[in-house]
Amino acid sequence: MKEINKVCVVGAGAIGSLLAGHLGAIVDTAVLTRREEHARALNAKGLRVSGKSELHATVTASTDPAELEAESGDINLVIIATKALEVEAGAKTLEGYFPGAHVLMIQNGLGCEEMVSRFGDWPIISGVTFMSGVRHSDTHVEYELDTATWMGPWAEGPATYEDARQVTALMNKSGLQAEAYADLLPHQWSKLIFNSAVNSISALTDLPHVKAFAAEDKLEDLGHLVHAMMDEAKRIAKARGVTLADDPWEMNVNAVNRGNTSGEEYAHVASMLNDVRNKRPTEINWTTGAIVREAIKAGVPAPYHETLYRLVKAYESSWSRKDAGH
Amino acid sequence: MKEINKVCVVGAGAIGSLLAGHLGAIVDTAVLTRREEHARALNAKGLRVSGKSELHATVTASTDPAELEAESGDINLVIIATKALEVEAGAKTLEGYFPGAHVLMIQNGLGCEEMVSRFGDWPIISGVTFMSGVRHSDTHVEYELDTATWMGPWAEGPATYEDARQVTALMNKSGLQAEAYADLLPHQWSKLIFNSAVNSISALTDLPHVKAFAAEDKLEDLGHLVHAMMDEAKRIAKARGVTLADDPWEMNVNAVNRGNTSGEEYAHVASMLNDVRNKRPTEINWTTGAIVREAIKAGVPAPYHETLYRLVKAYESSWSRKDAGH
Repeated sequence: MKEINKVCVVGAGAIGSLLAGHLGAIVDTAVLTRREEHARALNAKGLRVSGKSELHATVTASTDPAELEAESGDINLVIIATKALEVEAGAKTLEGYFPGAHVLMIQNGLGCEEMVSRFGDWPIISGVTFMSGVRHSDTHVEYELDTATWMGPWAEGPATYEDARQVTALMNKSGLQAEAYADLLPHQWSKLIFNSAVNSISALTDLPHVKAFAAEDKLEDLGHLVHAMMDEAKRIAKARGVTLADDPWEMNVNAVNRGNTSGEEYAHVASMLNDVRNKRPTEINWTTGAIVREAIKAGVPAPYHETLYRLVKAYESSWSRKDAGH
Repeated sequence: MKEINKVCVVGAGAIGSLLAGHLGAIVDTAVLTRREEHARALNAKGLRVSGKSELHATVTASTDPAELEAESGDINLVIIATKALEVEAGAKTLEGYFPGAHVLMIQNGLGCEEMVSRFGDWPIISGVTFMSGVRHSDTHVEYELDTATWMGPWAEGPATYEDARQVTALMNKSGLQAEAYADLLPHQWSKLIFNSAVNSISALTDLPHVKAFAAEDKLEDLGHLVHAMMDEAKRIAKARGVTLADDPWEMNVNAVNRGNTSGEEYAHVASMLNDVRNKRPTEINWTTGAIVREAIKAGVPAPYHETLYRLVKAYESSWSRKDAGH
């Protein structure tokens, strides 16, 4: 992979905006948006980052990759920063463009790389991110949690560990936390297991991620369920040959005991809770659903993940009923 | 048990109103209500039943059992028709009253008889009902489904099968469907298992009881979960020595394929769905939670029931949070 000097960020939600805002300050950065209006605003005003970073980047934005290719020339890194749900549509739009680029993917869950590989032979770097931001407008994002993005070469394609290192070096230079791993799976799965339990339970109970998720005193306590789901997923990971980098139950306990900066209760609104509150399709197929499919491949029972997967899918289906209650 | 000529119905929700409206047309009927206003309305206007029956009964209502005892004299049948949640408070109110009465209990789930027996030594008849009604006002209830109420002597007290037969004879005479069984458990458990799955899943997914509850084609289909819950509960029933009267899965399939009278999709709003839509505490402790406790006694694993039990309890807890989303 030659030196990265032209980047294209696909999707400018909170994560995409954080990436484009930081990278745009040090290299040519194009942004592929879904809405025309969003592209026009970015071209006119640039992209402001506040919070953990204070930046204002100039970017070239469009809804059409042909326009970005014509204006920016040879893009050598494409970062797909959409939600898992929009990866397929995004990759389809990219078909035939940016032939010399590597693709970095930053989604929750498993299975997105395969979808992208059907639309081009870009070497793919897998990534998971722990950073978070709040999008205040089309041209302003607040950098909230400055935790790391982890990445590594997708094992079923030609990308190398060195490629991933080059991308993390660029991200670090731009002010973002990033780490490369020769084998991302132990990290990807740790986050997957954590996310699959916390997000699906949160979506069904309308509870943000609070201390109840780690409580295991009374018979009814939710921590028992979180723990059982995580233990089940660990058995599935093991059967699939994956050794976890971090223990998901410890991640859960640490998160809810953290408290926020003002000493208040930690109560992170999981992205899936945000989705269901807005009646938007969730990422359940790529998180809890992905673990169910891995369990089938491994021949390991997965009653907990099957249950949560089916409940969230059924809940999603209720929104299109005319007798929906909320 | 001598001839039943004075009845007291405790709780005048839909089921209590249907009972008081029918029985009030043939025997002296007292109604113990929670609200003064409700008692006053019943005393002034009586109780109207429309729909499957057309009746208008005179009843004596009060919020105070002392008043009912003074006015009605020796009541020989008390029917506790509140929800499981209110049984304890209701039984406490009755403490010391109606010493010569038998008590008939009509609640979903298990464990209510024990609560009542702590407040008096009335012989207890257990019951489950399949009838349904719509309460249009404090003095008007519509008789919707004229399906049966099943009853039998509670095995841990002195009531007999003959007592239950006497009560069903009275109910039949009043126009209600009722059947007595020497051993109610096979019937009670069939309904318990059906209810525990359908109600808890419905509460979490915001889906009324529709065809999706019996679909088992795709991996995500909800029927797989309903089926797995019911199979699990059948193993627990067996380990507790209970032979089921009806197969809960068949009850489920038959219900959703029934269609309503106008040929439209069957979409019964389960009582627990109604509760959560109104942010009211549910009967989960007596249904799905009761199965979890029976599983522990039997030493049989219950991952599905534990999961649904904990999710519904956690969902209930979300309503008291200030950051609640809906």
